[in-house]
Amino acid sequence: MDEVFVLGVGMHRFGKFPEKSIKELGAEAVWASIKDAGVDPHTIEAAYVGNAYAGLTTGQEAIRGQVILRYAGISKIPIVNVENACASGSTAFREAYIAIKAGIYDVVLVLGVEKLFTGNTAKSLRALATATDVELMGRSGVQFTALYAMDIRNYMENYEATPEHLAMVVVKNSYNGSLNPYAQFRKPFTREEVLSSKMIAEPLTLYMCSSMADGAAAAILCSNKIARNHLMKTVRVAGSSLGSGQFQNYLLPPEETSIGRVARLCYEQAGISPSDIEFAEVHDAAAPSEFIQCESLGFCKPGEGFLMVEKGVSNITGRMPINPSGGLTSRGHPVGATGIAQIAEIVWQLRGQAGERQIKKDKSSPKTGLALNTGGRIDNDRAVIAIHILTR
Amino acid sequence: MDEVFVLGVGMHRFGKFPEKSIKELGAEAVWASIKDAGVDPHTIEAAYVGNAYAGLTTGQEAIRGQVILRYAGISKIPIVNVENACASGSTAFREAYIAIKAGIYDVVLVLGVEKLFTGNTAKSLRALATATDVELMGRSGVQFTALYAMDIRNYMENYEATPEHLAMVVVKNSYNGSLNPYAQFRKPFTREEVLSSKMIAEPLTLYMCSSMADGAAAAILCSNKIARNHLMKTVRVAGSSLGSGQFQNYLLPPEETSIGRVARLCYEQAGISPSDIEFAEVHDAAAPSEFIQCESLGFCKPGEGFLMVEKGVSNITGRMPINPSGGLTSRGHPVGATGIAQIAEIVWQLRGQAGERQIKKDKSSPKTGLALNTGGRIDNDRAVIAIHILTR
Repeated sequence: MDEVFVLGVGMHRFGKFPEKSIKELGAEAVWASIKDAGVDPHTIEAAYVGNAYAGLTTGQEAIRGQVILRYAGISKIPIVNVENACASGSTAFREAYIAIKAGIYDVVLVLGVEKLFTGNTAKSLRALATATDVELMGRSGVQFTALYAMDIRNYMENYEATPEHLAMVVVKNSYNGSLNPYAQFRKPFTREEVLSSKMIAEPLTLYMCSSMADGAAAAILCSNKIARNHLMKTVRVAGSSLGSGQFQNYLLPPEETSIGRVARLCYEQAGISPSDIEFAEVHDAAAPSEFIQCESLGFCKPGEGFLMVEKGVSNITGRMPINPSGGLTSRGHPVGATGIAQIAEIVWQLRGQAGERQIKKDKSSPKTGLALNTGGRIDNDRAVIAIHILTR
Repeated sequence: MDEVFVLGVGMHRFGKFPEKSIKELGAEAVWASIKDAGVDPHTIEAAYVGNAYAGLTTGQEAIRGQVILRYAGISKIPIVNVENACASGSTAFREAYIAIKAGIYDVVLVLGVEKLFTGNTAKSLRALATATDVELMGRSGVQFTALYAMDIRNYMENYEATPEHLAMVVVKNSYNGSLNPYAQFRKPFTREEVLSSKMIAEPLTLYMCSSMADGAAAAILCSNKIARNHLMKTVRVAGSSLGSGQFQNYLLPPEETSIGRVARLCYEQAGISPSDIEFAEVHDAAAPSEFIQCESLGFCKPGEGFLMVEKGVSNITGRMPINPSGGLTSRGHPVGATGIAQIAEIVWQLRGQAGERQIKKDKSSPKTGLALNTGGRIDNDRAVIAIHILTR
């Protein structure tokens, strides 16, 4: 079976770009990834495009990927549009990975892109609210931030985490984001600023929540055959797993939660254990979700996720940096682009190209990183959990 | 590399079902395919769902597949939503095929589903019009039937095809559809009825055009490991190819057109030539497109596609039956479901289970069939061309 490599990555900065179309966002990321990979664009055999909401936000419901890539000058190749809510990008990445693994293609482009600032905020909010069963959840009136808040309250009741801890994770991630030129928000916050920002859904304040964003991220994946000619640059996809399952359950040990089970598949595939992971990008759509996810991923003991930030373990200078990019709350969360932006950050960190936010392990760049991207919710189930492990 | 088999197929009849939700349509097809496959539903490891327009027609923009499958009682597994306009179903089928080929899964469910009769025809028509670049084509005001009409006129100017020939293909396909319990339209038309029906875009009359439909089709795919225990029923996926390219070009020989090139890849993969194909389902969104497609697929000489119907070659009793199901114009064209309905028809024909419309080759059911599903258009390019070859 073919091994699969990431040959190049590229992004359009995340943020608010009302003057730019989804085509322009996507094209910039695509060409950055092609340049980074150093491949002749004519060697790209296929493309997978992850996007969640363009049908509702731009009106381009069908063949959105074909339309964007044609604007970027890429046509006449097979293109597949993939949607999996907030995990659309990582799902597209996984489909490209599978196609190369199956021996179908040698060079594949993956694009994740989202356009939410369209001049009609209500329209974008309605689109975002479709990441659940619109008939069931829509009628209940409970929206996503409220659901995250319930999870965090549940966590705080089970463990010793305080509002101070919720603020500390934002302080860490906003500092990381301040060092990331692709981040939507580049202001480092203090604990006081985080705690005194507007209460959205108790205990979550404004600065603890990811917000709307435009943005794009792209990657060029390739087979072993192609990677051989690019030895200096290649990063290997050591594991890829996709799943779904119950949102959170404190009656289960972390490794038996839905994220824990999908992670175990990924560790097994990569032939490693959680202790081999040196850093991770996780899905902090609400910042403190980072605690729970670190526990499910096996980065700490049950109930000790909040101690990682208290003790500085998850800082970029710590033993186990989490969200060195700034994560969803600081780098930003243009839905379909997020999963590939996580991959891009891991690639840059592994290559030692992350600039001021570069993490060091034993005086060189790290060797192994993990990305956790989740999406959607139906009843109490996460609709999508996507995990990738990359190594150099 | 693993071989891939179709273990079961199932459909919800195509047609106008204003009282049924997209969930109900999808669930019926899913359970029919599970029953047909004879598998324990708990052995299904993953699902791919093809749908083009639910975001605009039902409001369920994100995780549409997860929502539909959960209604059908299928959750906690990886699910990927795939969109490729009118070829969404066959693209989902191909992604499942690739995942099994890569050794990722052994049993995968594929669903294609569409809900267009929502009580708001204008909304559905607007959705259908997004199978092109909405900024470019939308502004030109040219819609799909007009584009098909231009292609047919071009064909008629190049060759000897007459309006009579355009009617004959509808007579054939409507007869086939009259024998298909899953077909939207079950009335066989005469040439006179076809030619005297309302002119839509000259030379296309009403009965030459596929219309709006609700419907669903599903398939269970499996690896060799699983297929071994179901030897009596299995149909093998001998070839799968996906591409895009110029719509039609009379300066090129048929095998060098975009469909011709994608077909060649598929023949090469299957290790066969066009003359080994015994019957086919093709993409007759406008009935006479069948002529052009048969030429590109190599079923006849250039410019002789219309003679296949004149001479009865493409009848279900002929040498090379085309669209035994009734095709898009008679079986119906609920966009995301069409590609998998084509696959289902081929599976039934290969197994000798097509009832009154069963085609016979040398007194037994055929051994090899092909499905051509296309989707979307940007400028003069087909956005998607998907071809599958199945054998028993």
